[in-house]
Amino acid sequence: MPDFTATKSRFHLPQGVTYLDGNSLGPLPRAAADRMGRVMQDEWGEMLITGWNKAGWMAQPGVLGDRIGRLIGAEPGHVMLGDTLSIKVYQALAAALSLRPGRRVILSDTGNFPTDLYMAEGLIKMLGQGHELRCVAPEEVEDAITEEVAALMLTEVDYRTGRRHDMPHLTQKAHAVGALAIWDLAHSAGAVPVDVAGGKADFAVGCTYKFLNGGPGAPAFIYVAPRHAEATAPALSGWLGHAAPFEFEQTYRAAPGVARMRVGTPPVLAMASLEAALDIWDGVEMAQVYARAQTLSERFIQGIEATCPMLTLASPRDPDQRGSQVSFRFAHGYEAMQACIAHGVIGDFRAPDIMRFGITPLYLDEGDIDRAIEVVTKVMVQELWDDDTYRHRSAVT
Amino acid sequence: MPDFTATKSRFHLPQGVTYLDGNSLGPLPRAAADRMGRVMQDEWGEMLITGWNKAGWMAQPGVLGDRIGRLIGAEPGHVMLGDTLSIKVYQALAAALSLRPGRRVILSDTGNFPTDLYMAEGLIKMLGQGHELRCVAPEEVEDAITEEVAALMLTEVDYRTGRRHDMPHLTQKAHAVGALAIWDLAHSAGAVPVDVAGGKADFAVGCTYKFLNGGPGAPAFIYVAPRHAEATAPALSGWLGHAAPFEFEQTYRAAPGVARMRVGTPPVLAMASLEAALDIWDGVEMAQVYARAQTLSERFIQGIEATCPMLTLASPRDPDQRGSQVSFRFAHGYEAMQACIAHGVIGDFRAPDIMRFGITPLYLDEGDIDRAIEVVTKVMVQELWDDDTYRHRSAVT
Repeated sequence: MPDFTATKSRFHLPQGVTYLDGNSLGPLPRAAADRMGRVMQDEWGEMLITGWNKAGWMAQPGVLGDRIGRLIGAEPGHVMLGDTLSIKVYQALAAALSLRPGRRVILSDTGNFPTDLYMAEGLIKMLGQGHELRCVAPEEVEDAITEEVAALMLTEVDYRTGRRHDMPHLTQKAHAVGALAIWDLAHSAGAVPVDVAGGKADFAVGCTYKFLNGGPGAPAFIYVAPRHAEATAPALSGWLGHAAPFEFEQTYRAAPGVARMRVGTPPVLAMASLEAALDIWDGVEMAQVYARAQTLSERFIQGIEATCPMLTLASPRDPDQRGSQVSFRFAHGYEAMQACIAHGVIGDFRAPDIMRFGITPLYLDEGDIDRAIEVVTKVMVQELWDDDTYRHRSAVT
Repeated sequence: MPDFTATKSRFHLPQGVTYLDGNSLGPLPRAAADRMGRVMQDEWGEMLITGWNKAGWMAQPGVLGDRIGRLIGAEPGHVMLGDTLSIKVYQALAAALSLRPGRRVILSDTGNFPTDLYMAEGLIKMLGQGHELRCVAPEEVEDAITEEVAALMLTEVDYRTGRRHDMPHLTQKAHAVGALAIWDLAHSAGAVPVDVAGGKADFAVGCTYKFLNGGPGAPAFIYVAPRHAEATAPALSGWLGHAAPFEFEQTYRAAPGVARMRVGTPPVLAMASLEAALDIWDGVEMAQVYARAQTLSERFIQGIEATCPMLTLASPRDPDQRGSQVSFRFAHGYEAMQACIAHGVIGDFRAPDIMRFGITPLYLDEGDIDRAIEVVTKVMVQELWDDDTYRHRSAVT
């Protein structure tokens, strides 16, 4: 079992704050500012342009990609860091469609994070070949996997409810009809055990500012299964995905493997912060983190349900069906969450009525969970529930 | 006249180094590490997720966009920061082609930076409508602007030679035949006076890690002329370019104006460094910077030509035809540049034979230019030129 007291001590958590919003933005690793200072002063400041080679900046997107790869079950050398999640979705989807030229359906679900759907819309319009983005309810996905489908594009853990899709099972279904599977791991990487290789995902994408604690706007990543790595023509064919970027050739030649998913100049400073964040994951196994998250989540659910009858669990009750978050429905959830935040318990609200709490064992323990229960109870029972308008005074100022 | 001694004092320049490579990566502004530390500790560390509003992170891409906008003559509210230059080229080009649906030619030149050409290639393949990327020699561009052309896509300052295109003139030519003009300002922003509004550019893109000194991998920017701002359907339709990102709607609706060119979550940490870098530009006028760059460039050219007959000026001799760099051709330029770097004068080499020196008045003065002349002369005359192989010993170890 990892020493979660030790991992907690490696984060800066503000005085008086219980932070259950790591599924939106992870907290600051204590070492991150130092590491950033060193990269700025000793590398950028002293090495200047030579830092690209001397300090290893150019190789960093692949090095960090592999460190994330370990946490999602990827084969070494098949994860690349860069850009934003939206861009990586676009790359994965464009590649998948090019591998299934005869098919016209992108299958997704209404639980997918909107940017995935928006990027698909934009791609479809661009292609102009009559592709269709078919969005069904999450529970209808399995039956909707037909031979029309080129790509199944799903977010494994629902950002609102925390409901997990069965990735290996749905991927197998997709493959059985000749479709490809793209998995968005935004709420999975660093939260639940993922096995992209064993589960035979074709593509996977994710971000690093949530459970991985890379910092606000930290770069995204993309995984391309080895069997597709040489077969995909990148849609966003930037110079750093070229086989020989510094030859400055006039014509694009894709780099080997996942390196072709690089686009422009890598975000060196953002990577410095992420590197410090990933250090905390060294020696930590995802299965153990997830087991602990389940324990903490059960404690939270039981505590809240015992005292707050007006809150309805929006997450699956079965722990194995959940990611590393717990969500409740409440009609005035926005105001309720504002009141919780005013009392130092930070979760977040997702329209129309979801109060969302991220459960992150690297820096949350039983004491934090109990404090959160206490504050949510105080807000719901003493402040909001007694008020006919359900509006907390502090929320309307 | 700005006080260039004062601006120089605001940069960290390593002991013993004369840095003529700011056109590849600008040096560290002294205030950048502090500013980064504050954003990490006081904003991310203390505000956590609330920093998106409280610390203004969400608005920052537009705020910084406008500060860059001043340096390129853009109307306020029409420049947006984010992503990499390659991505911004793709967005601009896709938008331009969608505005000229009946035309099939993208006109560029062989002096364009390769990633612009590569991104165009990828876009053309994606569109599958038979578009053609037509690349002519820089001096043939004007005659090649015909009614077939949908978009003229050029880099204003040639990355190899520093040769400037006449942006207003070529834009006018393009408009006269009904084409649109996209300008890549990678080597222009912070280097030469640019007037995208007055020059009637339709789109402009650029990066912030060269003359603007934002740091390695700092974000890019895009300008969309007001007349097109509401007319362009974004190809990369990410959630932060949505009219109401936090409504989490299932369908994309473009945000007003240039905000639709936002894609994913903005790079908060990278923006912190850039903000400190842009502070140095406050009160500095581009015309004055450029005038001083011309003075320093003339001094450099005269000094080198007086002592190094084996170097051939690759940049235009007329100062007004040059950006803020001076390039020389030399068959063994790679080895020669390595030797210069070993002696503390950092420029760079661009294949096949270009030795490139960026002239950046914010932190270079006559003493630096004279030292660079001295070192280049020493390398060329005493070390390389006397050696039959033209190879400096230190370059082959």
